[in-house]
Amino acid sequence: MSENYQTLLQKVYEIHDIGKAMAVLGWDKETNMPKAGTEARIQQLTTLRRLNHAMFTSDEMGELIEKAAADLQDAPYDSNEAGLIRLLQRNYKEARLLPAEFVRRVSEVSGKAHPAWVEARENNDFAHFQPHLAEVVKLVQEMAELYGYEDEKYDPLLDQFEHGMKTAEVRAIFNAVKEELIPLRRAIDERGATLEDSIVHQPFPIDKQKKFARYIADAVGYDFSRGHLGTVVHPFATSFSRNDARITTRWYPDFLNPSLFGTLHESGHAIYEQGTHPDLARTPLARGTSSGIHESQSRMIENIVGRSLSFWQAHYPKLQSLFPEQLGNHDVVAFYKAINKVQPSFIRVEADELTYNFHIILRFELEQAMLNGDLAIADLPTAWNDKMQELLGVVPKTDSEGCLQDVHWSRPMFGYFPTYALGNLYAAQFYETAVSQNPTIAEEMAQGKTTALVAWLGENIHQYGRKFTPAELVQKATGSPLTHESFMRYVTQKFSQIYEL
Amino acid sequence: MSENYQTLLQKVYEIHDIGKAMAVLGWDKETNMPKAGTEARIQQLTTLRRLNHAMFTSDEMGELIEKAAADLQDAPYDSNEAGLIRLLQRNYKEARLLPAEFVRRVSEVSGKAHPAWVEARENNDFAHFQPHLAEVVKLVQEMAELYGYEDEKYDPLLDQFEHGMKTAEVRAIFNAVKEELIPLRRAIDERGATLEDSIVHQPFPIDKQKKFARYIADAVGYDFSRGHLGTVVHPFATSFSRNDARITTRWYPDFLNPSLFGTLHESGHAIYEQGTHPDLARTPLARGTSSGIHESQSRMIENIVGRSLSFWQAHYPKLQSLFPEQLGNHDVVAFYKAINKVQPSFIRVEADELTYNFHIILRFELEQAMLNGDLAIADLPTAWNDKMQELLGVVPKTDSEGCLQDVHWSRPMFGYFPTYALGNLYAAQFYETAVSQNPTIAEEMAQGKTTALVAWLGENIHQYGRKFTPAELVQKATGSPLTHESFMRYVTQKFSQIYEL
Repeated sequence: MSENYQTLLQKVYEIHDIGKAMAVLGWDKETNMPKAGTEARIQQLTTLRRLNHAMFTSDEMGELIEKAAADLQDAPYDSNEAGLIRLLQRNYKEARLLPAEFVRRVSEVSGKAHPAWVEARENNDFAHFQPHLAEVVKLVQEMAELYGYEDEKYDPLLDQFEHGMKTAEVRAIFNAVKEELIPLRRAIDERGATLEDSIVHQPFPIDKQKKFARYIADAVGYDFSRGHLGTVVHPFATSFSRNDARITTRWYPDFLNPSLFGTLHESGHAIYEQGTHPDLARTPLARGTSSGIHESQSRMIENIVGRSLSFWQAHYPKLQSLFPEQLGNHDVVAFYKAINKVQPSFIRVEADELTYNFHIILRFELEQAMLNGDLAIADLPTAWNDKMQELLGVVPKTDSEGCLQDVHWSRPMFGYFPTYALGNLYAAQFYETAVSQNPTIAEEMAQGKTTALVAWLGENIHQYGRKFTPAELVQKATGSPLTHESFMRYVTQKFSQIYEL
Repeated sequence: MSENYQTLLQKVYEIHDIGKAMAVLGWDKETNMPKAGTEARIQQLTTLRRLNHAMFTSDEMGELIEKAAADLQDAPYDSNEAGLIRLLQRNYKEARLLPAEFVRRVSEVSGKAHPAWVEARENNDFAHFQPHLAEVVKLVQEMAELYGYEDEKYDPLLDQFEHGMKTAEVRAIFNAVKEELIPLRRAIDERGATLEDSIVHQPFPIDKQKKFARYIADAVGYDFSRGHLGTVVHPFATSFSRNDARITTRWYPDFLNPSLFGTLHESGHAIYEQGTHPDLARTPLARGTSSGIHESQSRMIENIVGRSLSFWQAHYPKLQSLFPEQLGNHDVVAFYKAINKVQPSFIRVEADELTYNFHIILRFELEQAMLNGDLAIADLPTAWNDKMQELLGVVPKTDSEGCLQDVHWSRPMFGYFPTYALGNLYAAQFYETAVSQNPTIAEEMAQGKTTALVAWLGENIHQYGRKFTPAELVQKATGSPLTHESFMRYVTQKFSQIYEL
């Protein structure tokens, strides 16, 4: 083994350790830290970030990566060594493309835009946020130029979260989704059948919700011996190693879905991290390869598994036994329908499995329009409402329920939104392939078990961590590039049955 | 303000941030981390420790400290600037005195000695631990030489934990304690009255213990808005800033004392950290000045406050209301006696307030004997039992309950033990002074309140952090050096009354 590569590895390990220490500090901040501790915690995180950045972007690091790359030029493409070199070269190049002055301005602009957004949303006052959003858009425009692009300005922004995917590709897929999903949504609407979901809106004691969350996370394959469940306001998953991948949940005293599907969602993310190969440990390869592929794992567990009838046929009795008063008189089909109610609505994070994608497509289109200067910031509220009408058939009464609802645009995070919907599409394609390759998966699913499914995901996705791009991984795992077809087959079949279309 | 000092401060802040990040990782390790996460966590801590050490011990740092010291040579002794320079000079000198090779050997020896100790204690097999203890003793002997000393070899070891205090001074005080405390213990013994403590040994549901722990920590002045209570196996307090000082507790389902007095003890530590002056933030001055002074704060809250009759006259009704079945038929005096039962026993951490000091004196004397080569390691068990007979009048049946009970000697931590007993003595002297200076303290204490007491401690001890040595602080706060007299007055009065001597 190359001595340069060994030296490089030692540095990579230390940089990784600092990054993971930051993740622990971040997790603690959201789960346990008293609010008063914020100032000191931000200082601690800032110091670690500075060190981490200084160590990774040094000239010495760049030379070491290139020396190791030269030594390993004959390493097979799919070897861990070649994968690590590729990723380090990409990350190093990107980290050096943003001047310190620009990074400083990102902090400054976000630092002001975020509280302004909070206030604007609270007071339904878009005008208050507008100048800050204009600054954010300026930043992402500059960022696109700094990173550079061949085809579209949105490409380098998307590339940060979904490496190698082009805007044109996403557009083609989203247009295909629109073309088929709008008629399906209309058909459901015209069917005129409103599903009853009042049973999930009852008082559910939180200690029992916690008990069931642990039960259900374990049931889908989250390994508690290498994890931990914390309580937060905005749920997320995080990992400090494959042997310590954590999930978080919030608990509503009178609404069951957030803890139930939030836990399943974060479990899907964490199972991915728990499944990365041990040989990738302490390197940037030891994590999910992209935001979209990560989301495919969480959405598969949350929706394809966690909102299926067979899953609840197996686990609903346990839920009933914990909540006999609330659920004792409602059978599993009633529960299944309650958790699958389709209802066009204003808020993305509360959207059902079918209409969720429209919320994303809307944002994807508006982000590009703002980025390219085709949409004046002042016109965003109107454009938002027009698109809501087109895609969802409903229009919010306030901007707080409209273009002010998401945190993302208070930071220069353009390019992230599409990965949420890509996750749904990846998930359906992976699942369809998995079931076709291994009949045991469907047999187990009929009993509410996911052992074979998680094993297939581990073998075909999780173990590789970040070694392959999303496109490479999808091709490798499913034999074809990403399309919208599996997803459309899945939702069409599922909701045609539920709504008796 | 000196430019050198400003530059120094920036470096000190960053080094401090890394140290506190390590503290967060350590806290999480004990409270939330799954056991499987250990390997990665150790790697993360090792990397941060290496960075922290490299940054602090660099030649550049040494020069900067000296330049700033020269600029500030006229700063008043009790200014923050002079205090910080003094502490940095001391820490820098000490950090450079231990060669990297020695530090590596400390890790290596401890790494082997610790599991050997665990095994030896489990199997009551001193011979298994003996060669490792011999290695540890060799290390502390070398450490003493590396640090250097004028009078006794034990001095530099003690100095790490109780800066400025000499072995001879501790010996004189401990001998004075022995001279008066042994007769008191014998008098209690001869009185023949055994207190009944079965009421604290009943089933106490843990969720209610947790509730009461929060209540009682709040009652003694621990500020939950700047803290957090976690669950662990071995309780400790830690702080990441004065605005985030945490406590931990363990819960026994059928024994009330550990959660009760453990919580009070750790609250005392955390109140100290919460009380350091904001101007000391992000510097090594922002913590308790020594192990002994820190222990004085925890023992004062745990014992002088938390095992007093007036305190429970105020708070026992609350405890009874939570545990009506267990405590409803027992009055506060019965409870007071149960938590103050004096009973010579084998295990230090379970010892009562009076006999606890004997356990420390024993270890203090044996540590010196081993260090100075006056006691062969093989003879430790016999020497231990002889001292137990002399000081406590009881002899353990096994080495597991004897010389193998503490973790400290599996690491080169000689010099730490005496600070436990010094804490008891400091506590009594501080408390006696506080009450004599401010009558409100006693009035409040009669109602179970500690506001005035905590304010006195804040004013006279907490705010200074590490700016003064223990000796300076005691002189400043009480007008005289540490003596055993306040402590002897306190225990003599308290236990004469309880045991009707």
